[in-house]
Amino acid sequence: MKSIAILGSTGSIGTQTLEAVDFLNDIKVSALTAGGNIELLERQARKYKPSVVAVADLSKAADLKLRLADTDIEVVSGQEGICYAATLDEVDMVVAAIVGIAGLSPVYDAICAGKDIALANKETLVTAGDIIMPLAREKGVGMLPVDSEHHAIFQCITEKKNIKNLIITASGGSFFGKTPQELENVTVEDALNHPNWSMGRKITIDSATLMNKALEVIEAHHLFNVDYDRIKVVVHRESIVHSMVEYTDNSVLAQMATPDMRLPIQAALTYPEMAEGIAKPLDLSKICTLSFYEPDRKTFPALDLGLYAGKTGGSMPVVFNAANEAAVQMFLDGKIRFMEIVQLVEKAMEKHTVIPNPTIKEISEIDKKIRGDLNC
Amino acid sequence: MKSIAILGSTGSIGTQTLEAVDFLNDIKVSALTAGGNIELLERQARKYKPSVVAVADLSKAADLKLRLADTDIEVVSGQEGICYAATLDEVDMVVAAIVGIAGLSPVYDAICAGKDIALANKETLVTAGDIIMPLAREKGVGMLPVDSEHHAIFQCITEKKNIKNLIITASGGSFFGKTPQELENVTVEDALNHPNWSMGRKITIDSATLMNKALEVIEAHHLFNVDYDRIKVVVHRESIVHSMVEYTDNSVLAQMATPDMRLPIQAALTYPEMAEGIAKPLDLSKICTLSFYEPDRKTFPALDLGLYAGKTGGSMPVVFNAANEAAVQMFLDGKIRFMEIVQLVEKAMEKHTVIPNPTIKEISEIDKKIRGDLNC
Repeated sequence: MKSIAILGSTGSIGTQTLEAVDFLNDIKVSALTAGGNIELLERQARKYKPSVVAVADLSKAADLKLRLADTDIEVVSGQEGICYAATLDEVDMVVAAIVGIAGLSPVYDAICAGKDIALANKETLVTAGDIIMPLAREKGVGMLPVDSEHHAIFQCITEKKNIKNLIITASGGSFFGKTPQELENVTVEDALNHPNWSMGRKITIDSATLMNKALEVIEAHHLFNVDYDRIKVVVHRESIVHSMVEYTDNSVLAQMATPDMRLPIQAALTYPEMAEGIAKPLDLSKICTLSFYEPDRKTFPALDLGLYAGKTGGSMPVVFNAANEAAVQMFLDGKIRFMEIVQLVEKAMEKHTVIPNPTIKEISEIDKKIRGDLNC
Repeated sequence: MKSIAILGSTGSIGTQTLEAVDFLNDIKVSALTAGGNIELLERQARKYKPSVVAVADLSKAADLKLRLADTDIEVVSGQEGICYAATLDEVDMVVAAIVGIAGLSPVYDAICAGKDIALANKETLVTAGDIIMPLAREKGVGMLPVDSEHHAIFQCITEKKNIKNLIITASGGSFFGKTPQELENVTVEDALNHPNWSMGRKITIDSATLMNKALEVIEAHHLFNVDYDRIKVVVHRESIVHSMVEYTDNSVLAQMATPDMRLPIQAALTYPEMAEGIAKPLDLSKICTLSFYEPDRKTFPALDLGLYAGKTGGSMPVVFNAANEAAVQMFLDGKIRFMEIVQLVEKAMEKHTVIPNPTIKEISEIDKKIRGDLNC
C-alpha cells in the first residue's frame, strides 16, 4: 500500500486529494500538514489517523496538540515540522499542495529524502526548476504533475522524442473577452467568479490575470525540458482539452476530461498504474462544442511578462512569482485594483538585477525582499 | 532505406503515398500495382523505377509491357501478378491501398511472406480479421493503420492497458443533418460532395451512408482487439479530431491533425520513427470550433447494421461488405437510389446463413455469390 504525505491538506488540492484517497481505498495517509486551519486538520487527522500532523503556525500547532492529546498522532510545528512530515520514513509519495513559495523547501527536502512528488505547487519549479529537476533526476524521484495542464501533457507524451510544441490550454479566466477599460474597476468578487474550475482564491485570481498560465509555461519548461519558444498557449473556454502535444509530423495529441482536479490527483497517486475514475466520464456529444482562441496578450500582459521572466531565468522568475503573490494578496485585501497586479509585478521585475544561479537560500531571500518591498 | 510495394498505386491513397515518398526522400519504391489505369502507372513506373509493376487487367498489362519495353521493369499481370509484387524479396513494407475485397488476397500473401503492412484496405480486416490478425502476430508482422481514424487510435494508445473505450469520429458525410425524406432523391453528385476529405468515390459514398464508419468499427475491433460494446462513434463535423481513446480513469486522449491522408500514410511509412510533416500544422485558434454530436442512427441505419454484422461475426461481415460494394456501384451507375444501398445490404444479410469460421477461399466465394445475387 502506497503511503503519502499531504502538504497543505486543508486547501483545495489537499481536500480533493483526500477525496481521491477515499475513492481509491488503497492508500495510507501517513502525514498531513496545514497552515493554520486546525479545525479541519483535526477532523482529517481523526479520520485518516496519520503518524504525523504538522501546522505551520506555532500557536495553532500547540492548540492542535492539546486537541489531539487523546490520540497517538505526533503533532509538529513550523516550517521544520512540515519538512519533517515530508521526509517521514514511511512516506513513499509527497503531495505538494501548499500554495506559493512556502511549498518549495519541503519539496526540496522530500526529493532529497527520495520521495516521489505529486506536484500541485507551481512555485517549486517556477522559482527553483533549475535546482529541483536535476535533483529529482539524481535521486531517481518521480515528478508527477498534478496541474490539469501538466498532467495532460504528461499523458500526451507517449515517447520523449519527436515533440515539436507543447500547447497549454487556458480557460481565459473570469475576464475573457474584456477590454482593458472594462477591467479598470472589476471587483474581487468578479475576479473570483471562474467559469469552469472551483479552485483556491490565489489561483482563481491568477487565472483571471493569466498569471497562472505564465507560471504554467515556466513550470512546463522545467518539467518537460522544452524551450520556451516551443510552449504555446491557446485559450479554450470549456476547459475540456487540458493541454496538447504537437509532434514533429504535425499530429497533435490532446488530453480531454471533465474539469475535475481529482483526475490528475488520482493519476499521480496511482502512477504508474491507473484506477477507475473518480472524475465523471466525458460525454462529448453533450458538450457539443469546443472552442479555441488566441490569447489576448495586450489585455492580459501577464503572459508575456511571465515568458520574459522564464526566458531571462536566474532569479527573475522568483521576482515574477513573489511580486505576483504579494500583489494578488493586496488585490484580495482591497488595497489595489485588478490591473495594478500586473503593473506591480512588472515594476518589481524592472528594478531587479538578475542573479544567474540562485541557491534555494537566495531564492527564499529574494522572495522575502520582493514581498517586503511591495508591502511597504 | 525502406523498400515498399504500393498495391493500388494509381488510386487516391496510392498517389498520396507517392507524394509522401517524394517528401520523405528516403524510401525505395520496389513495386507498383494498379487495376487498369496504365497511363498513370506508366508515368509512376518511369519516375520511381520499381523492379516490378503489376496490372490486374490482363490485356492492359500486355499493353503496359510494350510501353515499358525500353526499361528493365518487370511487368506482371492478374491477381497472381499483384501477389507476386506484394511478396517480392526486396520489399519491407506493403502499402495495401487496393479498394475493396480485391485487396485481401495480396495482403494475406504479403503477411505470409513477413512483410509489414500499411493497411488502407479496410476490407482485409472487415472480412478476414479473425484470420489476418493472428497470422500477423504469428509472423511478427507490423499492421500499421493508414485510415486516419485507426492511425489516430494507434497514436492515442500509449500502453495497451487501461483502455475503456475507443471513440471513432465520423464527419457525418455529405448528408449530415438530413431526414430520411430529404435523402429519398439525392443524386450521386450530392453524395460525392464530401465536406472535408478528398477521397475515392466508393469511400465517399460509404461516408455518406455511414457504411464507412461501420466498416471502421469492425476494422478497429480486429486491429485493437477491443469488444464492439467498447467502440463508440461520435459525429465530429470538422474532421480535426480523428479519433480518441478513453482510458479507465475517464481521461480521453484525442489525436488531431489537418484532414490530410498523407499524415497517416507518412506515419506508417516511417514507423517506428517519425519524420517532419508533409501535412500542414494545425492552427486551433484559426479553426476556432470543434463540434460533436450523437450519430443519427435512424436516418443512417448502416451503422447499426455494421455493428450487427461485426457482432454476429463469421461470414456475416463478408456479406455486409460485399453487398455494400455491389450496392454502391449500382448507386454510382444510377441503377438504384441512395437509400436503397442500405436496404439491399440489409436484405442480403437477412438471407444469409452464417458460416462460423470462413477460410480465405470461402470468404472469396461468399463475396462473389453476394455480388452475383445483387447484380441479377
